[in-house]
Amino acid sequence: MASLNFDHSSIFNNNPLDPEEFRRQGHVMIDFLADYYLNVEKYPVLSQVEPGYLRQRLPESTPYNPEPIETILQDVQEHIIPGLTHWQSPNFFAYFPSSGSIAGFLGEMLSAGFNVVGFNWISSPAATELETIVVDWLGEMLKLPKSFLFSGNGGGMLQGTTCEAILCTLVAARDQMLSKIGRDNMRKLVVYGSDQTHIALQKAAKIAGIHPKNFRAIKTTKSTSFALSPDLLHFQICKDIEAGLVPLFLCATVGTTSTTAVDPVGALCHLAKDYGIWVHVDAAYAGSACICPEFRHFMDGVEGANSFSLNAHKWFLTTLDCCCLWVKDPSALIKSLSTNPEYLRNKATDSRQVVDYKDWQITLSRKFRALKLWFVLRSYGVAKLRNFLRSHVKMAKVFEELVAMDKRFEIVVPRNFAMVCFRILPTAMGERQPKRPSHQNGNVDNGHKVLEEEEESSNEVNQKLLESINMSGRVFMTHAVVGNVYAIRFAVGATLVEERHVVMAWKVVQEHATAILSTN
Amino acid sequence: MASLNFDHSSIFNNNPLDPEEFRRQGHVMIDFLADYYLNVEKYPVLSQVEPGYLRQRLPESTPYNPEPIETILQDVQEHIIPGLTHWQSPNFFAYFPSSGSIAGFLGEMLSAGFNVVGFNWISSPAATELETIVVDWLGEMLKLPKSFLFSGNGGGMLQGTTCEAILCTLVAARDQMLSKIGRDNMRKLVVYGSDQTHIALQKAAKIAGIHPKNFRAIKTTKSTSFALSPDLLHFQICKDIEAGLVPLFLCATVGTTSTTAVDPVGALCHLAKDYGIWVHVDAAYAGSACICPEFRHFMDGVEGANSFSLNAHKWFLTTLDCCCLWVKDPSALIKSLSTNPEYLRNKATDSRQVVDYKDWQITLSRKFRALKLWFVLRSYGVAKLRNFLRSHVKMAKVFEELVAMDKRFEIVVPRNFAMVCFRILPTAMGERQPKRPSHQNGNVDNGHKVLEEEEESSNEVNQKLLESINMSGRVFMTHAVVGNVYAIRFAVGATLVEERHVVMAWKVVQEHATAILSTN
Repeated sequence: MASLNFDHSSIFNNNPLDPEEFRRQGHVMIDFLADYYLNVEKYPVLSQVEPGYLRQRLPESTPYNPEPIETILQDVQEHIIPGLTHWQSPNFFAYFPSSGSIAGFLGEMLSAGFNVVGFNWISSPAATELETIVVDWLGEMLKLPKSFLFSGNGGGMLQGTTCEAILCTLVAARDQMLSKIGRDNMRKLVVYGSDQTHIALQKAAKIAGIHPKNFRAIKTTKSTSFALSPDLLHFQICKDIEAGLVPLFLCATVGTTSTTAVDPVGALCHLAKDYGIWVHVDAAYAGSACICPEFRHFMDGVEGANSFSLNAHKWFLTTLDCCCLWVKDPSALIKSLSTNPEYLRNKATDSRQVVDYKDWQITLSRKFRALKLWFVLRSYGVAKLRNFLRSHVKMAKVFEELVAMDKRFEIVVPRNFAMVCFRILPTAMGERQPKRPSHQNGNVDNGHKVLEEEEESSNEVNQKLLESINMSGRVFMTHAVVGNVYAIRFAVGATLVEERHVVMAWKVVQEHATAILSTN
Repeated sequence: MASLNFDHSSIFNNNPLDPEEFRRQGHVMIDFLADYYLNVEKYPVLSQVEPGYLRQRLPESTPYNPEPIETILQDVQEHIIPGLTHWQSPNFFAYFPSSGSIAGFLGEMLSAGFNVVGFNWISSPAATELETIVVDWLGEMLKLPKSFLFSGNGGGMLQGTTCEAILCTLVAARDQMLSKIGRDNMRKLVVYGSDQTHIALQKAAKIAGIHPKNFRAIKTTKSTSFALSPDLLHFQICKDIEAGLVPLFLCATVGTTSTTAVDPVGALCHLAKDYGIWVHVDAAYAGSACICPEFRHFMDGVEGANSFSLNAHKWFLTTLDCCCLWVKDPSALIKSLSTNPEYLRNKATDSRQVVDYKDWQITLSRKFRALKLWFVLRSYGVAKLRNFLRSHVKMAKVFEELVAMDKRFEIVVPRNFAMVCFRILPTAMGERQPKRPSHQNGNVDNGHKVLEEEEESSNEVNQKLLESINMSGRVFMTHAVVGNVYAIRFAVGATLVEERHVVMAWKVVQEHATAILSTN
């Protein structure tokens, strides 16, 4: 029999989960990863491979016979690592951070090792109960109103990502509203955000079947630092009601993706309340900072919201994925998302004394995510976590000051947290610039046009600068466009980052800027 | 300064990701988990804790100061492990398996260690490219038609769970249909499954805004072994069309949750084609077996479907979560789910030469899931994987034969894969049974009623038997109710399971049955 050929395979003795073979290979992998962290600074941060590189290097099909872990890890080193963009590199300043940590990693390992499928309480009571505990712990650290905590008849949970958190709350709000106004009014429901709200809102609205014409991205401007204006929102709500539509859902943001703008949560909640609109506060990135008393004011007014979320996998040392979501009224989620098939019936559920998290989310199966957040909270503690976040803010300030000292650059919007938006000024571009008309002989229209051309030209130069910086492999940053201005985003938050990396990053920016400006 | 208090903390030297501290703690965790696997057989499989047990044992809030890993692991041992239901125990026969493996675990570790956020190609090209490669590899192992593979203009991906796979394909189908018939016809769309289809379909339909009245769970019966009848489906489709509704989506199942029934995929696809219905084939559990030539016929006809999925985290040695989804027309997914915010724009995306998986799924952020599936495929190889699955089927056969030898029991539905549905027969229940009327003196109505009473009474006894078995902690099984019959499900698939565990499980069943029948 063919099967006998493999009974004495050197790959594993008896079983794919043989404990001693697990131990051996596990230690090999730990050393591989520890070495990776030792060396991560040396790799080009942004992967330099070409599309399709990997298919050329790997076999066309699954091997027929087993391969040893050592061979596989050699391929990881040679073929996978060159294709990584190194989010754990201290020279990674792109997007928002994906801040790994030893504690987060260990929690993830333990979760993968237990490999329980915690859809309901009985399928692993510890998975559910620890989750209710850690979200209460973190909620208290954030000084969330008690109404969001289990201890106050609200409740929290760990979703994968903000996209899921927004979709779940939107669906709950949708069904709550439809139960009042009738199912056939679905096409009338309107969803609100700003033009800075994360794309997750629009995607959730599409998935939930909100009519695409009823998605409102209210325009923001530099005058409010790209925060959502309650007046403009109010105007739009009134217009929609006049048109026979039904305002449903507002996503307010604490720390937008492009510029970390903060919407005025209190004023928005106040307004929304008058119209029975569900308010979700998305603090995916900046929520973490709010465990520090000096940043807590950014989420003031949250007591008026229906739900609040932050991504512990962004700036809270917890491995991807871990989005913490709190809601005031878990029954709204449950009404929309619960299912009770016979094959999952059990006494604990029937007793109604337990939480079954499957009824709070999109999926049935769920990982034991609470372990990693629990490990992070305990391994570092409140004081260390605060100081860790503060150290990133401090480094961002250092970078900001460096930018401010170079007259060729400007800070595009005021810094709120650990992210700096900057650019080369149009005025730094010297001869190549279209001449700015003097006020004496240019009319206003022409002046505008020339200014626009200057801005466009500046945008091109900044884009060129960013590409040049990233292609060097020495650092990785990304960009945003706000108010027609192309800004380079410098987000401090990689766990391994130190001040020397920030200073070096600025040197890289200056070198590339000098080179680009001299050839213009 | 407060921060200085922790600079010389014994918890970690400099940084939460210090490589040498990572190495030290990582090795500690590997040993902890290896010991867990050594001992897992000794724990009660089903957790015996009471609701609320953990809150009584843990502090009320996050510690202010760091705690060492050793303290945390001691708490895991004392407080978390008693609250686990041990899915990795060889005595776990409940639900469907969550089959961990060394390779799956190592892949998960590597993914957590790199901690890249692979939403688009450029954010880590290897994450996207390896995913396209492994889904093609696995697709070929399954002999999926080329039209589902990248090499044939289709394509696959790794979602978290089947719930997400169904939601994404349903939304794609919905938007494709609405673009033809007009957005305002949303309330007319109808979704089809059987009463055995996984609850994921109904949940996806709710989330996607399908009118609750338009969800059809076609009744199945024992006569088709609880498979969906194309005739009954056809009848319902015609009825819906007559009522002015629009048939949209059908979920066919290969291996249902209750009894591993197999819907006739070919006939259903043929029917659906005539009405322009999107067919998704959900092979969450049983799809894995189809890599063996002798099981491949169960998915015959899949060439007529639009999409196909299986959960590698169920019965394919890959740690939760890993749902493999293949679609013939990725552009349908992309049309519904793509978003292109400025802050994610990059040259690779603009070149249209790369896959950006964020446009195929609900969420933006995504883990490097391909690593774990790649590790599983390479570590074990085609031959070993097939033999591993066959060994479970063989053990289920052994159990089936044991049941058949005990006249008190019956097999409720024919076994297809590695799951056996059985129960104590009503006739085994002796004196307590209501007497069955003889055909001579009972009329048919009375006879029916008595039979129903017998079945009800039998259901109660089987429920009691299952509870008694599970409370013993020695094994864990779950149940299903099909055709009003309460059946105990015995699913073989835990990675550490050996024939001796199956034989012992049957002895446990017999012992508890004898005790229960004697007290009745």
